[in-house]
Amino acid sequence: MGTRNKHYLWLTALALVGLLWLLTCGKNEQKAVTVSVGGQEVNQVIQQRGLTAQDVYAAVKTYIPTGKHDEYIMFASGGHSGQVLVIGVPSMRLLKVIGVFTPEPWQGWGFSKETREVLAGGNPPGKTLTWGDVHHPGLSETGGDYDGQFLFVNDKANSRVAVIDLRDFETKQIVKNPISLSDHGGTFVTPNTEYVIEGGQYAMPLNGQYASLDQYKEKYRGMITFWKFDRKKGRLVPGQSFALELPPYWQDLSDAGKQVSEGWVFLNSFNTEMATGGVESGNPPFEAGASQRDMDYLHVINLRKAEQLFKAGKTKKINGFNVLPLDVLIKEGVLYFVPEPKSPHGIDVTPDGNYLVVSGKLDPHVTIYNFTKIKQAIEKGQFKEHDPYGVPIIDFDTAMEAQVEVGLGPLHTQFDPNGYAYTSLFLESAVARWTLGGQWTSKHGKEPWTLVDKVSVHYNIGHLAVAEGDNVHPDGKYLVALNKWSIDRFANVGPLLPQNFQLVDIASKDQPMKLLYDMPIGIGEPHYAQIIKADKIKAWEVYPEIGWDPSTQSKHPKAVQAGGEKIVRRGKTVEVFMTAVRSHYTPEHVEVKKGDRVIWHITNIERARDATHGFALPYYNFNLSIEPGETQTIEFVADRAGVYPFYCTEFCSALHLEMAGYFLVKP
Amino acid sequence: MGTRNKHYLWLTALALVGLLWLLTCGKNEQKAVTVSVGGQEVNQVIQQRGLTAQDVYAAVKTYIPTGKHDEYIMFASGGHSGQVLVIGVPSMRLLKVIGVFTPEPWQGWGFSKETREVLAGGNPPGKTLTWGDVHHPGLSETGGDYDGQFLFVNDKANSRVAVIDLRDFETKQIVKNPISLSDHGGTFVTPNTEYVIEGGQYAMPLNGQYASLDQYKEKYRGMITFWKFDRKKGRLVPGQSFALELPPYWQDLSDAGKQVSEGWVFLNSFNTEMATGGVESGNPPFEAGASQRDMDYLHVINLRKAEQLFKAGKTKKINGFNVLPLDVLIKEGVLYFVPEPKSPHGIDVTPDGNYLVVSGKLDPHVTIYNFTKIKQAIEKGQFKEHDPYGVPIIDFDTAMEAQVEVGLGPLHTQFDPNGYAYTSLFLESAVARWTLGGQWTSKHGKEPWTLVDKVSVHYNIGHLAVAEGDNVHPDGKYLVALNKWSIDRFANVGPLLPQNFQLVDIASKDQPMKLLYDMPIGIGEPHYAQIIKADKIKAWEVYPEIGWDPSTQSKHPKAVQAGGEKIVRRGKTVEVFMTAVRSHYTPEHVEVKKGDRVIWHITNIERARDATHGFALPYYNFNLSIEPGETQTIEFVADRAGVYPFYCTEFCSALHLEMAGYFLVKP
Repeated sequence: MGTRNKHYLWLTALALVGLLWLLTCGKNEQKAVTVSVGGQEVNQVIQQRGLTAQDVYAAVKTYIPTGKHDEYIMFASGGHSGQVLVIGVPSMRLLKVIGVFTPEPWQGWGFSKETREVLAGGNPPGKTLTWGDVHHPGLSETGGDYDGQFLFVNDKANSRVAVIDLRDFETKQIVKNPISLSDHGGTFVTPNTEYVIEGGQYAMPLNGQYASLDQYKEKYRGMITFWKFDRKKGRLVPGQSFALELPPYWQDLSDAGKQVSEGWVFLNSFNTEMATGGVESGNPPFEAGASQRDMDYLHVINLRKAEQLFKAGKTKKINGFNVLPLDVLIKEGVLYFVPEPKSPHGIDVTPDGNYLVVSGKLDPHVTIYNFTKIKQAIEKGQFKEHDPYGVPIIDFDTAMEAQVEVGLGPLHTQFDPNGYAYTSLFLESAVARWTLGGQWTSKHGKEPWTLVDKVSVHYNIGHLAVAEGDNVHPDGKYLVALNKWSIDRFANVGPLLPQNFQLVDIASKDQPMKLLYDMPIGIGEPHYAQIIKADKIKAWEVYPEIGWDPSTQSKHPKAVQAGGEKIVRRGKTVEVFMTAVRSHYTPEHVEVKKGDRVIWHITNIERARDATHGFALPYYNFNLSIEPGETQTIEFVADRAGVYPFYCTEFCSALHLEMAGYFLVKP
Repeated sequence: MGTRNKHYLWLTALALVGLLWLLTCGKNEQKAVTVSVGGQEVNQVIQQRGLTAQDVYAAVKTYIPTGKHDEYIMFASGGHSGQVLVIGVPSMRLLKVIGVFTPEPWQGWGFSKETREVLAGGNPPGKTLTWGDVHHPGLSETGGDYDGQFLFVNDKANSRVAVIDLRDFETKQIVKNPISLSDHGGTFVTPNTEYVIEGGQYAMPLNGQYASLDQYKEKYRGMITFWKFDRKKGRLVPGQSFALELPPYWQDLSDAGKQVSEGWVFLNSFNTEMATGGVESGNPPFEAGASQRDMDYLHVINLRKAEQLFKAGKTKKINGFNVLPLDVLIKEGVLYFVPEPKSPHGIDVTPDGNYLVVSGKLDPHVTIYNFTKIKQAIEKGQFKEHDPYGVPIIDFDTAMEAQVEVGLGPLHTQFDPNGYAYTSLFLESAVARWTLGGQWTSKHGKEPWTLVDKVSVHYNIGHLAVAEGDNVHPDGKYLVALNKWSIDRFANVGPLLPQNFQLVDIASKDQPMKLLYDMPIGIGEPHYAQIIKADKIKAWEVYPEIGWDPSTQSKHPKAVQAGGEKIVRRGKTVEVFMTAVRSHYTPEHVEVKKGDRVIWHITNIERARDATHGFALPYYNFNLSIEPGETQTIEFVADRAGVYPFYCTEFCSALHLEMAGYFLVKP
């Protein structure tokens, strides 16, 4: 058949397809569409699968061909899995799970000596913790924009903060907050990552001592902690960090000021009723007792002044940690309240730093405060009243700029570059798009402070994340709804259902938002996520040199090169210096006596990307993941005689199964 | 604009699109295509994103619109993560991670008393294991086809087998093999799941005692274990299970006979050289020492006869476990060898049970044996030689039906309903499609035992899985390549890279195979997977009644209904009977004295699907996931005085944050 004939056939085929489309779909975009593409039977597939025009749009919008990369990377907290999820956007593929608070053997996380020590840094006195409730990932920022260098996360269940280095996507440090066992409003960073913010949640005695609930108002307290970050060392510095003592409200989310509000920090609270529960004794349960008042308190904190007071020695020590007492905060003008409706969750600062958006989850509005007005009120000392602890309260009407009725159960807000704000609506299972005012009005050209669009999500959305949507320069384009329930969205996998991340197209200023993709999350319940442009992350492909210790990001003192392998015995201690390369360990035999302490270092001497080796030792409960160049150590007492075949757990070559050896323990 | 005008516009637009397609793509399907679909700017997206015709085909073939479900469910081993991954096909979305050998707090796996006891069932004497190396998931079968009831997996690192109940996707039992610390060739099931097969890997003294490597040939042994499964109880029965003592070759993959070969089991081996390594002493490393010979031994096992011998008391006890000694196996005609080239991995029985496909990873062929010929040789006693241990060897040419040159590094084979076999090629990073012979020739109508197609994958494919591709009735349609390396396929997430599962379209008998989708696996290194039709799984949406104990799949003796909550003190033991419902616990206060033993039962009294509640207790390191109807228990000593706010870790309602209470420990 000649080329011309082929052309005519195609034109005819396309015309017929067009007709079919018009007949079946022209009146309703949601009906099935038909379309032919280059001999690939696309038409047939679309028909067979009953895809609508919107489905086809979503498919081609989110599909990433092999070898192409996602444009954005989303870091989602893993919730009570204790880990961090790394997800490609727009494909919504899970690229990696980073071990943080929970040991994870694929990564060898919590199995090697080096990683056990990082985990142990987060243990409270007398206990070993093996999980966390990861709430808010916070990317490091420079000038108020993500810089791709570090990620911080908090553990709500035990009030801890972890530092992840994005050169190798591994956790480097975990700190335990010495004055609390409960946090929520973290981690958020100041615009140049001078401080990592950890706000408390459930009030308790800050000294960790017992106090009965009768003494709640006197002895229980809230807190917010500012962890000093040393960017060069990549570590939080507890000695340069400090906390504020707060009234025993339940503090919730926080956000750092930026631009005009840089140097200030904002923190929500609920249960300003100071309900103490006890449904079993005829009291209202917390859910009712903590929802009586129409207003709670937005905490407005002068961080610069707090830092000055800390440096001036105005802190007291509680459990060895620096705490600025509540009376000092009041006296020195660090802490102010603004009434906020009702049982709020999100407090989100607009990219210009001038507006604070509060979502009161029991109020159908978002309330927008004007930071300039708040600052003026503080400067003028305009306080009509004080809370029971003496904290000055700025009048609601003085601070408020606008309220937008967005719908039921507003929780959390992010922003795009076009002057839109996006608020999650938990009760309504929807995302609201609304217009900012002030300087933003020229961006969208619409009525300011107005709801413009809504998109349904499935179901019960908690947080949402817009690409770089809490930066000084938001990217927009994509929004991810972090839905808490999935109900009927996925194939039935039993009574414990996955959550549902839904990708929403927000690229167009004028078109409605479009639902693009459902991503099941059957590995944890993410609470919050941040989305960064992928090219901002400059991760290593292999470790910088052979014999690298990721826990210090420097040369490992016990690393060896090929030829330097040895077994050294000192009394009852046997130290092994081993190398791993495709596809053998050197040495392959390690023999010790029962009762010996074994310290075993393994260096992966590969330089090829992806040439990771594992190391499994039966019975003694070890698995390592040793990336190219890395050195890792296990340490244990050989307390049972016998023969233990060790082997490589990463399929490294065709002779991977032969990458093995024998550990022998003589009686 | 009238409807007719619209029609003409559309026809013209489509014709133009067709023209554009011909100009840009007619000569090469891989170039960009353009196409218009129902006002959804599909055209623009395809152009902007540079998608090829094949990309668009793949996108619409794999995209699942919100609320629609995947057609197949893939159960993939999680490798050294110790877990099982549940994946939807064709969307390649991770639906769930099932906790098996590694504690996982999102599921509460290994945190509640009930789940800790399941995990403890797999501990060797004197040690607590907190990870596993999950190799081969095996779905339960009825009549040689998956029945969707149970899933079995093995732990290579410690020789263990776990049972997962697919009514609730939870692990119910873990057994530790008493005679080995290393397995590989499991779990595979007999056609009606009478037995779960666990083949060994690295030889060792079966009694668990020390023996030097000088005594390798005398004291080290291989093994294969047949675990009896009680389907009604959903449990393996160790007392009715038994193992075979095998020569100290390194046994590898196994498969159960079916149809004509039902009652037989086939098991590969390598290192029939009996190399013992020791590169550090100038010996060849295992990778070389175990690759000297051109042939290893396919183990042919008469399971029916072995079972008879076990029942007749011919076993001896090793570490309390029933083992049929090697001399009995030889004398009674249970064990035969057939030479197999060279260092094989996969042994795969065709759907009719008549052909055994062996992939010698250092030989470019797959070798196909004819079971009927093997059986005839056994019946006739045609053995020219025996191995050093006296096992009769069937002549290679007698047993061999055909060899197909498929390419470099063949590893593993599965089947479709059209008479094709699919073999993974590790070294070549490809999948080979080739034709079966015999009765299958009429299905494909092509030359039998012939390579017909190859598709490149990225990179280093280990196993592959075809939909129901190792069943008596394979489904075909989709194939998943379990690639071990990903190198450049995904955005850089540091030196530890995800693996890459690639979905391949094998639906057409006549069209070439097509690569559809790349799924990063950054959560473990799956070794093997099985793909089942989703509608075969009948999982519960909620537990059958309030107060359910999943570890026994029956009513929990300590469950309470609403109104039955109580705190009972007996001496120094405090037992709490709590309920959880949106959004409060009853009771909300639990006060004990320091040193008390606390036994705390929580019943989720919800009946709504997805109404899961969590339970986090700070400091004492507990998190539970309590699905609707479930009862879970924690038990601990309150060894530190203080105030511990507990709370719900599953976002259950707008007042989820208020679902909390105080645990108080008096000094």
